[in-house]
Amino acid sequence: MLSKPRIKQIQSLKSKKFRDAARKFIAEGHTLVSDLVQSNMVIDSIFATTSWFHKNQKTLHHSKAELVEVSEKELDAISSLTTPNQVLAVINIPQRKFDNDIFIKDYVLMLDEIKDPGNMGTIIRTADWFGIKHIICSHDCVDVYNPKVVQATMGSIARVQILYENITDVLSRLDSSINVYGTFLEGTPLTKIRFKKTGVIIIGNESKGISSSLEGFVSEKIHINSFFNKTETNTRPESLNASVAAGIVLFAAKNFCS
Amino acid sequence: MLSKPRIKQIQSLKSKKFRDAARKFIAEGHTLVSDLVQSNMVIDSIFATTSWFHKNQKTLHHSKAELVEVSEKELDAISSLTTPNQVLAVINIPQRKFDNDIFIKDYVLMLDEIKDPGNMGTIIRTADWFGIKHIICSHDCVDVYNPKVVQATMGSIARVQILYENITDVLSRLDSSINVYGTFLEGTPLTKIRFKKTGVIIIGNESKGISSSLEGFVSEKIHINSFFNKTETNTRPESLNASVAAGIVLFAAKNFCS
Repeated sequence: MLSKPRIKQIQSLKSKKFRDAARKFIAEGHTLVSDLVQSNMVIDSIFATTSWFHKNQKTLHHSKAELVEVSEKELDAISSLTTPNQVLAVINIPQRKFDNDIFIKDYVLMLDEIKDPGNMGTIIRTADWFGIKHIICSHDCVDVYNPKVVQATMGSIARVQILYENITDVLSRLDSSINVYGTFLEGTPLTKIRFKKTGVIIIGNESKGISSSLEGFVSEKIHINSFFNKTETNTRPESLNASVAAGIVLFAAKNFCS
Repeated sequence: MLSKPRIKQIQSLKSKKFRDAARKFIAEGHTLVSDLVQSNMVIDSIFATTSWFHKNQKTLHHSKAELVEVSEKELDAISSLTTPNQVLAVINIPQRKFDNDIFIKDYVLMLDEIKDPGNMGTIIRTADWFGIKHIICSHDCVDVYNPKVVQATMGSIARVQILYENITDVLSRLDSSINVYGTFLEGTPLTKIRFKKTGVIIIGNESKGISSSLEGFVSEKIHINSFFNKTETNTRPESLNASVAAGIVLFAAKNFCS
């Protein structure tokens, strides 16, 4: 049985303050926890029903995590979900260091003040689909270890390396041979952009777009081709959702590079 | 001042049951309400602060809506948002009829059991960006007049016509010359698809994808090209988010059609 202090300790990880102090985060659900167990991340502890442990013996064979059998009622008490799953894991937040080599091998995604947890999770998941290994977040982005972000990544948080950096500093130190792409309301239509095999793609904030202080670093301003009729109505769509824009640009960058 | 029954009546529109009975929905915030006022939708009433009415006199000039000045406290009581805006409107749900002609002019998006309000709103917004005028939802999709969906459309709900239909029936009656595209985990890479100028694009449910009962209607099975390393790790991304997939397929369909 879980003690009250233990329940409190796990529940506290829903808040960034306590995650930062403990350097731990929570993940829930079969797919997500399985993906994390099989990744390089260090699993602190797994809380699951007897039947879940029974079905997943093989996956857990080499795991050094503390395994704690709990009732569904106990899972309910520690869960962040409205419909709790069979399993919840506490995972060590990985300590990652910035390395300039990441820009040599593939595209790097740079997120400028992405605030919505759903968008952040979806962007990480989308990056993973397109083989992107590295995401650099500005310090004012939502915390990627926020439970809502973790769940929205659908396991991709186990495979994509995420760093928080001062992105102005990173961009100002970047080798001038590296192309920096960013989406704007005005720019070269995406279908006319000649992508290289590597580069940086900046995704801007949900309402403000890319900060004006970063605009000068962008070597290729992209406008995602729109098709609404500009004269037919008084009103028009202002922009695309940040994660949809990220998906479309990554699709183009990876498929149409030379 | 708003009477208690009036406040209750507006609050009741957060629930589908009451929206269906009253045939009305709510929209909040300056951009959304302005877009709706300038659309063909019939606005029942607008609740706003004195300063909002003052600034928007011109837009409201021809509006037949009931205009009700309210305090910020009253807005707080009727709002669905955590941070209420300056304005909330009650709008008549448009009565729309299915017309086969919609398939002749442009792409039609067909949504098969999209459950998440955020995804639904983002798909409507994305469709609008790509000039799509018609979306057909299966009856088991989330209600598009749910306040979370309305807000996530960012005004696009004023410009895109949305119908709820039995999509199996619609597809079975469809002229055989019309191409039906759908995304699957296995299929022709999106970059190899030759899109026509018109057609139907089906977007499947967030976890199950396109229903097996609809698969037979799909003439072009699309796989969005993935780039993750299939041998490097034990785990891999299973799919893309539904609204991201919709955005990528619409981008390709509208830009690479012949």
